[in-house]
Parts: sequence; structure tokens; C-alpha cells
Amino acid sequence: MRLINGQAAERLDLSDRAFQFGDGVFRTLYQRDGKVPFLQRHLAKLRADALALGIAAPPDELWLADLRQVGTADATLKLLLTRGETPRGYVYPADLQPNRVVQVAPLAAPRPLAAGGARVRVCEIRAGWQPRLAGIKHLNRLENVLARAEWQDPAVFEGLLLDRDDHVIEGCMSNVLMLENGRLITPLLDGAGVAGVMRSVVVSAAQQGWSVAEERITLPRLLAAQRVWLCNSLIGLVPVGSLAGVNWPVHEADAALFAAIEIILSKESFTL
Amino acid sequence: MRLINGQAAERLDLSDRAFQFGDGVFRTLYQRDGKVPFLQRHLAKLRADALALGIAAPPDELWLADLRQVGTADATLKLLLTRGETPRGYVYPADLQPNRVVQVAPLAAPRPLAAGGARVRVCEIRAGWQPRLAGIKHLNRLENVLARAEWQDPAVFEGLLLDRDDHVIEGCMSNVLMLENGRLITPLLDGAGVAGVMRSVVVSAAQQGWSVAEERITLPRLLAAQRVWLCNSLIGLVPVGSLAGVNWPVHEADAALFAAIEIILSKESFTL
Repeated sequence: MRLINGQAAERLDLSDRAFQFGDGVFRTLYQRDGKVPFLQRHLAKLRADALALGIAAPPDELWLADLRQVGTADATLKLLLTRGETPRGYVYPADLQPNRVVQVAPLAAPRPLAAGGARVRVCEIRAGWQPRLAGIKHLNRLENVLARAEWQDPAVFEGLLLDRDDHVIEGCMSNVLMLENGRLITPLLDGAGVAGVMRSVVVSAAQQGWSVAEERITLPRLLAAQRVWLCNSLIGLVPVGSLAGVNWPVHEADAALFAAIEIILSKESFTL
Repeated sequence: MRLINGQAAERLDLSDRAFQFGDGVFRTLYQRDGKVPFLQRHLAKLRADALALGIAAPPDELWLADLRQVGTADATLKLLLTRGETPRGYVYPADLQPNRVVQVAPLAAPRPLAAGGARVRVCEIRAGWQPRLAGIKHLNRLENVLARAEWQDPAVFEGLLLDRDDHVIEGCMSNVLMLENGRLITPLLDGAGVAGVMRSVVVSAAQQGWSVAEERITLPRLLAAQRVWLCNSLIGLVPVGSLAGVNWPVHEADAALFAAIEIILSKESFTL
């Protein structure tokens, strides 16, 4: 089922700027047993991302009404907010009405992980540099599409993107975190990448037990870490088992971090 | 009028990857008295851009049939080719069927230029760096949207984008060329920018009388040029009259370049 501005619909006008320019933002939500983890964080991030692009986000109540209307219990939900519809050209009027889209997809089964954790590769494509868009989950996602198209092997769980300066930015569909000398560090996303909601949750969780920082991380530095994790709203937190010839066994920090996330989850799971 | 895969339609399925990810390429065509200048170059560039993204472009005959079907004489035509429709996620199957869209808009009246030429500003947003997408006219155009939103003054014709290293890349909707010591130089677009069809036409025209090169151009170097031009398929070639406090008068190279373009135009104007 899909909704456009609260109405069941399968098709959007070709004039929509998401179609013309990728002019919009989105969120991917995990729903299980009617509950959506961290929904308030998602809606706040959607609003912040829209604001950063000059798009007026609708009140959260409209999204909530949409989600109740689709009425799923277990689903992958996608919320998209586009700048709206205009005739040809980059210019848009100040009073343009955004389009709000909700899409429902089945909840994918968790992907099996090798012993120790996910098998990860390094992508050939680099993460582009654009500070004005860095951190925002916007609809210009060709880079992710091209990165994900680099491998077909289903045993490879994720591909990492490095930037022009050889710093690790993120995975195609996930954020990256590492444990280094008792500190939890995640890449600084000031020139590239998406600052995901699950990343913010993991950072909150880690702050209970570790010193946490955003820093520039080269690949050799990542490979020397005691532990590396990936995260997003669908996979949750996933330990990396192998990357670029380095293998990590299960680490005691895994259980500690999972437990800390569960505590936040228990407080921030939203029942629609 | 609008066509999707040759059929009149106003709406596209939400599953289309242009809507989800900006996963596609496009062309903007100028049509006057039933003729489309440089149509073969446009279709070749569309095909090359699609190939660069791994999208299978349809035969030119299908685009030509579409354009004959819309049957306009004077119009701004937009051709879009999307990777096609998929369920959720960046992955796509190898045999995915692209979607072909043709949109018709009125031919905008030429915008009046100040004496000497167009008034141009420098944008605050920088041109991002992504060599894998540089040169391609793809549907990830948030950068152009944000750049164009920086000014409202209708007297400002265009805004220039510099990259991270302070090199001039392009305008929001045009390419840039300059005359420097008898040489015609246009920015090297290996990390950012769109290599437009009109740019290739102006380069072809300039090669009749000047030495032509693609080089890295800083803003001070551009400002010291004898002449600066903008170009795209809708505006053609437009001399720059003022930029960042520098004013250029009409230059004898203008007429020579216009004349050389007219010769190419006379050979490459396609009657539908």
C-alpha cells in the first residue's frame, strides 16, 4: 500500500521535483509487532533534513495518521517528502506545497552473518564531497546505487565508501562505528555521508560505557580497530567479521553495546 | 503533453527509481519551427550518460517516434530515462526495463540581457566532487536546485559554482567558457559538472578560429579573461557582461563565435 498526501495512490505526477531532480528527503522505518523503534528520532531527522533543503515538513501528526492508515504490523516503511510539483526548471516558488509519500514493503528476513560478523568490502566508487548535503538523507542517491551495483555476491553484506582523501565515510546503506583503545569512534560526516538515526542511537548507547567521538578515520586505522560495526534502522547494529583481509572475532563489546541499545529501544519504541 | 514509454501519461509509478533515488539521466531540447538543434548530439550524449550509469538506452528511433508523436513546433522538450521500477533498496536486477519519459513545456521568451551581456553572480554552495558522476547529466540535481535558490533578483541571469579547490566549474544551468590570450578555455569537468551538448557545439565552433582547451580555471583567472560566455541548449551562447565587480563590454569574438555556431547549426538542425 502507498499513500500520497494521505490518499491511497500508486503514481505521482511527473512534475514532482523528486522525479525531476531528486529534490526531497526520506526515511526508512522498521516496524515489528506494530512498533516502530525510534520513530520520534526519525520524524525529527526528517524535519531537520527537510529544513536544511528549505522544504517545509508537515506536522508529525500527518505522518502518524498516514502510518496508522496503512495499518501494518510488520513492515519496512518508507517516508518520502518532496519539495512538490513545478513546471520545468530549478527555480521554485516560496509557497510550494510539498508532497508526502508513504510506502509499505514487507519486512525482509534478517540476513545470515558469517562467524564473527558481516563480510564487508571496500567500494571502488568514492563518497563524493558536498558539505551542503552531507549528513542529510536526501533523494540524490546515485552514489549509493552505483556503489551497491559493484558486487553481486550475496555473501558480501556491505560495501564501504572512502572519500577523496581516503577517509572512511559509510557503507552503501549503513553507518560505520569502531572501537579503538576503549573509545567508540564514528566517521565525521561534514563533507559526505548520511548521519543515520541508528547511528545516533548507537552513539547514545555507547555513551553509557565509552568515550565517543566523531573523527576522520582512514582505512588502515579502521582495520586496526578492536571492533567495527555497521548500523542502520533495518539491520540494527551488525558487527563486521571481515574487511580487506582483516578478520575480527566476536568481541565482548558487542554484547555490552547491544544491551545498551536495548535499553534505549525499550524507551523509544513507538506503538502506532 | 507528456509520454511515458510512448504512451500519453501524467503520472509515473512511485517505484520508479528516478523518484526513489534520482536514478536516471535527462536532456533538455530547444525546438523552434519544428527543428531541434543538435538533436543527434543530444541523443548520443543521453546514450553515453545512460551507459556510464549502467542504464540501457533505447534506440534513437524510439525517442524520435516520441518527439513526432508530441508533434510540437515550438517547445522546450525534456527527455528523461530512468533505470526503471524496483521494490525497496539500491539493488536492481540486470534485466531491469528503463522508463522513457518525454515532457513538453512552452518555449520561454529569451531573457533580456544588460549591455555587454548577462549579469552573473558567484554561488555560495560549492560544486561537489564525484568523478564517477562528473560530466553526466543525471537526475541527482539537488546541488543545482540549492544553487539556483540562492538568488531571487530576476536581473541576475546565472550563478557560478566553484569547487572545493576554488576552481570554476559551471553555472547552475549552463557551462562556462572564456577567451584568454586568443585561446578559448572551458573548465575541465573531471570531478564535477555537466558536460553539456551546447558546450561541445561551442568548442567545435571555436576550433575553427582559436586554440581550444579544457583547463582548471580559478575565479581570478576567469575575471582576468578577455571575454566570458555561458551556454546551454535553451539560451544558446550568452556573453557575460558582469561578474564579481568586473564588467566586460561587447567583444569582437562574440560575433565570430556566433557565426561559427550558426554554421554548425545549419548542418545539425534536425527536422522532426
